[in-house]
Amino acid sequence: MTRFGKRQESLPDLVAEAARSALSAARLEAPDAIVVAAMNPEEFIGEGNFASQIATHLGFAHVPALRVETATSSGAAAVYTGFASVAAGLSRSVLVVGGEKMTHLPTPRVSELIGRSIDPHERSYGATMPALAGLITRALMAKTGVTLKEISQVAVKNHANGARNPYAHFRDPVSLDAVLESRIVADPLRLYHCCPISDGAAALVLTAEPAPVRIAGIGQGADTLAVRYRESLVSFRATQAAAKAAYRMAGFGPERVEVAEVHDAFAPFELIALEDLGLVPSGKAGRATLAGETAIDGRLPINPSGGLKARGHPLAGTGIAQIAEVFWQLLGEAHGHQVAARVGLAHSIGGLATNNWVTVLERTR
Amino acid sequence: MTRFGKRQESLPDLVAEAARSALSAARLEAPDAIVVAAMNPEEFIGEGNFASQIATHLGFAHVPALRVETATSSGAAAVYTGFASVAAGLSRSVLVVGGEKMTHLPTPRVSELIGRSIDPHERSYGATMPALAGLITRALMAKTGVTLKEISQVAVKNHANGARNPYAHFRDPVSLDAVLESRIVADPLRLYHCCPISDGAAALVLTAEPAPVRIAGIGQGADTLAVRYRESLVSFRATQAAAKAAYRMAGFGPERVEVAEVHDAFAPFELIALEDLGLVPSGKAGRATLAGETAIDGRLPINPSGGLKARGHPLAGTGIAQIAEVFWQLLGEAHGHQVAARVGLAHSIGGLATNNWVTVLERTR
Repeated sequence: MTRFGKRQESLPDLVAEAARSALSAARLEAPDAIVVAAMNPEEFIGEGNFASQIATHLGFAHVPALRVETATSSGAAAVYTGFASVAAGLSRSVLVVGGEKMTHLPTPRVSELIGRSIDPHERSYGATMPALAGLITRALMAKTGVTLKEISQVAVKNHANGARNPYAHFRDPVSLDAVLESRIVADPLRLYHCCPISDGAAALVLTAEPAPVRIAGIGQGADTLAVRYRESLVSFRATQAAAKAAYRMAGFGPERVEVAEVHDAFAPFELIALEDLGLVPSGKAGRATLAGETAIDGRLPINPSGGLKARGHPLAGTGIAQIAEVFWQLLGEAHGHQVAARVGLAHSIGGLATNNWVTVLERTR
Repeated sequence: MTRFGKRQESLPDLVAEAARSALSAARLEAPDAIVVAAMNPEEFIGEGNFASQIATHLGFAHVPALRVETATSSGAAAVYTGFASVAAGLSRSVLVVGGEKMTHLPTPRVSELIGRSIDPHERSYGATMPALAGLITRALMAKTGVTLKEISQVAVKNHANGARNPYAHFRDPVSLDAVLESRIVADPLRLYHCCPISDGAAALVLTAEPAPVRIAGIGQGADTLAVRYRESLVSFRATQAAAKAAYRMAGFGPERVEVAEVHDAFAPFELIALEDLGLVPSGKAGRATLAGETAIDGRLPINPSGGLKARGHPLAGTGIAQIAEVFWQLLGEAHGHQVAARVGLAHSIGGLATNNWVTVLERTR
């Protein structure tokens, strides 16, 4: 992946940097096919026909390429699409690459573009991603007793991890007080509870050949666009369904997962994910986090990369970066923020948890 | 599919109309997965997270959905993605649905949005789709001797076919003189050489169960975004590569194809496609068309639906509509414009032939 953050390079250049790095690591000259993830290159950078644009830019104009989009989980959707192509025998090797360029736009414009992921009716009442996340956080606190301190500890932990990750957008640790005192974004969420707007790209190669890490399971889950129609606000059906499908394919469950990258676009979402994924018993995620169980040296390291919170969140780049990160963790290549694990999980949220993905990776040797 | 043309309904409503019709024909209550094709719903209708939006709108909020995009061939790319999912055993049934809503925007805006499919450098010199198509047409005439009369006969034939198709945007035949005298769009192309801007949607169901028609072969081909770097202007490498892949998968070649829907966004593109697909010997497409060989009652009916020229071209809807049309032709359900065929082909162009698809369908009983 590229370093995430405020980057001056164009999106095609960022994507090319990530793609070349993945191809080089995989010792592959040219893939059979390319799957490109980008949430909205049309409006973020004014470009269309983006799969062809990327293929040409990479020097692979004759390699078939297509683009996949599921809002903020587009990267994971692209991995799934590449996986299906290899699993069906349609390709022997697929380059999956995605990213976003956002920081050149004013924040209100970015917020507007991301807000289009929300149900149009709820949007018409002024709902934005942070606003809905704030409502969900209030519901979570009221219903489960999770505290703002526990939620804030997610941010503290992930910033501490990001400080050790050379690819991270933010490299400075933050204190609990700093999180609790940062400015309000959407009550009760404060600035340090929210992931940043980032530029960046990530890539990986899927192959039918023997590889040091395999996709043991991959699953997608969906939920209604309108948050008001959800059965629950304090867990995400889309994550639960994705996890169920991924574990079913893997033939094992959360008990074997030793590290996970989860979609902490807002700090409380990490707590929700831990329980939806079955990694922590229901109602225990806040306490486990405060007790250090999910820290990089804890029982079950969560977001050792820094997560969306500190590594950053270049939308379609994120789902791929999470899987690349787990790949590195399983192979002992996560320099500076390494944990010990043979099985890892990546969890990506599309929209306000309308289209989520879970990918389980396993070291093969 | 819906009727193509100027429609008042919203894109989600058009998509739902097509989806319900396909599910009903397939006698399927709910699919395992949904693949949505839309080229640019963000800018055409101001909506994002479109796969989730469509799934929710169809009443399938819990069915996993993703969106696929390859510019104007997005519909065919979605069929391929659904095919891979079924072929990989990841889904037993996939609803593939796509469309576009365009007629509510001013034509220059539509032209600008579609023009983003062109290489940015060529775009910076003012290249538009019709302008590049005009250049290609001039090259075709100079290099192969094809005449404007032969090119115009494509439009005459396809309008005659569209007049018989209740789903078509244009239901009136046009004379050769009317085509040759219509106003210039991009020399030598005139208005009646160009497909219209249309609203519409199309859908189909892919299944692992026995079905009356099977996808015998499906293939993608790609070429460089920049037209100036192409090896040839008078044939499309992306079509040739897609056809080669599709025929290889099918285990047979163009000799068994008895009907085809080809991407005639500009009338001369039908002549180029006929030769690139191997359906007509090199250099013979113009004469074959003028001789009536590709007419609905000819040796090899091409675009019996009216093609993009007369059925219309709601971008991401087109690639799916072509395959639905061939499906109907093979089953004898193409009311009013039926031909006799057991094997048919659909050919879709993405961008200016950067990302093309060929799908070969075969009747199974």
